[in-house]
Amino acid sequence: MKYEKVSTEMLEKLKAIVGTKNVQTDPDLMQPYSHDEVTDPAYHHMPEAVVFAETAEQVAAVVRLANAGHFPVVPRGAGTGLACGAVPTCGGIVLSLEKMNRILEINENALYAVVEPGVRTSDLQQAAENKGLFYAGDPCSGDSCFIGGNIATNAGGNRAVKYGTTRHQVYAIEVVNPKGHIVHLGARLQKQSTGYCLDQLIIGSEGTLGIVTQATLKLLPKPLYSLDLLAIFNDTEQAIGVVNKIIKAGITPTCVEYMDNITIKSVEHYLNETLQGSDCGNYLIVEVEGTSEDDLDEKAVTLDEICTANGASSLLVADHNKIWQARKAFAEAVRAESLIVCKEDVVVPVDKEPQLLHYILQLAQKYRLVTRIASHAGDGNIHLNILKNEDATYEDWDMRVKQNQQELYTFIYQLGGRLSGEHGIGYKRKHLMEEFTDPDELEMMRDIKKALDPNNILNPGKIFNIE
Amino acid sequence: MKYEKVSTEMLEKLKAIVGTKNVQTDPDLMQPYSHDEVTDPAYHHMPEAVVFAETAEQVAAVVRLANAGHFPVVPRGAGTGLACGAVPTCGGIVLSLEKMNRILEINENALYAVVEPGVRTSDLQQAAENKGLFYAGDPCSGDSCFIGGNIATNAGGNRAVKYGTTRHQVYAIEVVNPKGHIVHLGARLQKQSTGYCLDQLIIGSEGTLGIVTQATLKLLPKPLYSLDLLAIFNDTEQAIGVVNKIIKAGITPTCVEYMDNITIKSVEHYLNETLQGSDCGNYLIVEVEGTSEDDLDEKAVTLDEICTANGASSLLVADHNKIWQARKAFAEAVRAESLIVCKEDVVVPVDKEPQLLHYILQLAQKYRLVTRIASHAGDGNIHLNILKNEDATYEDWDMRVKQNQQELYTFIYQLGGRLSGEHGIGYKRKHLMEEFTDPDELEMMRDIKKALDPNNILNPGKIFNIE
Repeated sequence: MKYEKVSTEMLEKLKAIVGTKNVQTDPDLMQPYSHDEVTDPAYHHMPEAVVFAETAEQVAAVVRLANAGHFPVVPRGAGTGLACGAVPTCGGIVLSLEKMNRILEINENALYAVVEPGVRTSDLQQAAENKGLFYAGDPCSGDSCFIGGNIATNAGGNRAVKYGTTRHQVYAIEVVNPKGHIVHLGARLQKQSTGYCLDQLIIGSEGTLGIVTQATLKLLPKPLYSLDLLAIFNDTEQAIGVVNKIIKAGITPTCVEYMDNITIKSVEHYLNETLQGSDCGNYLIVEVEGTSEDDLDEKAVTLDEICTANGASSLLVADHNKIWQARKAFAEAVRAESLIVCKEDVVVPVDKEPQLLHYILQLAQKYRLVTRIASHAGDGNIHLNILKNEDATYEDWDMRVKQNQQELYTFIYQLGGRLSGEHGIGYKRKHLMEEFTDPDELEMMRDIKKALDPNNILNPGKIFNIE
Repeated sequence: MKYEKVSTEMLEKLKAIVGTKNVQTDPDLMQPYSHDEVTDPAYHHMPEAVVFAETAEQVAAVVRLANAGHFPVVPRGAGTGLACGAVPTCGGIVLSLEKMNRILEINENALYAVVEPGVRTSDLQQAAENKGLFYAGDPCSGDSCFIGGNIATNAGGNRAVKYGTTRHQVYAIEVVNPKGHIVHLGARLQKQSTGYCLDQLIIGSEGTLGIVTQATLKLLPKPLYSLDLLAIFNDTEQAIGVVNKIIKAGITPTCVEYMDNITIKSVEHYLNETLQGSDCGNYLIVEVEGTSEDDLDEKAVTLDEICTANGASSLLVADHNKIWQARKAFAEAVRAESLIVCKEDVVVPVDKEPQLLHYILQLAQKYRLVTRIASHAGDGNIHLNILKNEDATYEDWDMRVKQNQQELYTFIYQLGGRLSGEHGIGYKRKHLMEEFTDPDELEMMRDIKKALDPNNILNPGKIFNIE
């Protein structure tokens, strides 16, 4: 699809909408907006301008102008994405929501928060906690990522086993749709059957169907008691095989995280700390909440029985901060090892996870891949990071990564899985989305995109191709 | 929109697809398919033929034929709807899914069921229970309604407070889309970020965007302990005002149901039984689940404190079967009183429910309405049944009902509510949907409908108008 360049006239009109200070065209200052967390420069692309919006009305006016002037609008939160979803691959402007960063309301009585899209996830978590409440969304990048981005990618994170992903935290969203209208989708209701569920369609659509300008999110009473257990296994598949047994036992854990031994060693090195069982163990971190100390104790006993019966070499009560510091350091530890890395975010049914892990390790041997594996094991979501071998050329490594992908994804779809558990498709996985998705399903997605965004203005070139 | 009549030639083609025995044109035998549970004959409409499908391939072939022959296809489950969603108001055929009634799989290890759309809800509940598992969906009409219909309307029911509505029980659906393609939407995953969330768009779209031909549903380990408490209040608003306090206390009840005194008396008369506190009490039925007897006891103590502090005259441990028989007899008891009844299904945020109940009672006085009220109070969903006054003409009653609706809905939208909590819009509430929904939101719904169903074949004339 061809677009117009963002002309001087259009820049003036943009300035009239958001103010001169909110339109940036200096290449040095635009550079950070040319990429997300994907470090490979092949996936970077400079915008023609970066526009900072401060209100929904400004966002709507910018989108209407883009329709008139026929240039792409690429919405952006914190830029912590891992799929180039916020990178302006077709040119046009990046529309940053970072200035819309207010928590507008925390309602203690009715248990909800109203926030702008640029609110940092951890800031919302803290604001809720300050009032004795709890926001359940918890991506690993919570210290930097924004609520708007969480909604755009349907971010998952650590507590999705019990609380679901971002889409399950959302009551309602204010959205600027691709035609530049401000609409209010969803409602602060436990249920409704009042027309199409447009809110859930927009959530996870990666900024291609609408720009979220406000969100009403669920808060919960703060869980009273919780406990982190660390089960250490010598065998990888035994470790991950326990997950389905825990869930079947009727324990609804808050988190179940897996880290393999080489990844534990990588984190150990990065943190410059000794981690328990790092000699040859693989971790299963299980967090459970309870209604009382007794309730927690009972769950701990059951978990001990299940893990021991399934080959755990030890089960320890873990220090919450320390164990989560180790788990959350995963991405940074990998980055410290190599800037050239392929991050897979595959997801399968939880009961198929041991098969997947087995297959991943087999393929890694076959293609001589240097892997670091951490998994939101409770969700069947495995983060496989493939580091460039130090002794290989980029081309050779890249070829093996691509061969691995073909076999891996074929297997994953056979298991009933999907290619992204929480990072999204963006630009980076689009060709794989096109290859592995049922054409009739893709046609429905394209039909909806074309119907809602007839000029293909909003974040074009993402998720799938439009002819 | 104009359609072709279902010609003799088309009938022959339909017979070629589904077999002669599966095409019905006898008016007497078609009569039951001309209406749902709405008893008012003004909302009945005869189909041109009733077609019974036995496979997804047959459904797909019928939909493709309908596109070629340009006649409407109205999918139908058990016909227990309350909004005329399955009534062929634009003519064409009714496509009954009642013969696709097999439970294909109950997987005890991975906790899911695969069912055809014509499976009765209670049959699935029972099949799960037989294996020590639990299907959380529980509409009051569970003994007759089908899973397909539950999905089409996003049916709610009694346990939505804790477990969500039908859309939260669904992993994946096989759907015949309006172009006649069989697509598999969603997946048996805890999370994914792999393109648009088409499954949630189809769920609740009342058969206008697709016909569900198979569903993969979540099962849970059976809750070990549960308890039903009956709190009796003299004051209606105090009763309903307790709900938000229970939720805020961190107790996640499985159900919180409200019945007002006159409704209790109506049920008492229908069941020919004496119900506790029926002299002047209003009911709040609270069901809680626990991980142990102790856990249940603690919750019961907390509930007792909350209810007593908020004006309950008594709190009793209720007999589960008896109290739920009373609650579920609501619809039948009303029907025994009058066949002419307007059933409202409004929903508001739970903390606004006392305001809504107050307003409903005020309006009932103003318009001299004979009301019976039961509410899924834990969800903010109030079923207001308005019976025709015995001493009034239909026209006079109907006029007062419509005046009441105007004021009621205006107030509900001010409270952030919606016009249907679980029954859907169908044909009956379409004019209200058009009146009370933001035009830009309606435009998005229409755009999607036109894009996915360009010939407007699938259940036309429902939810909103297409020009």
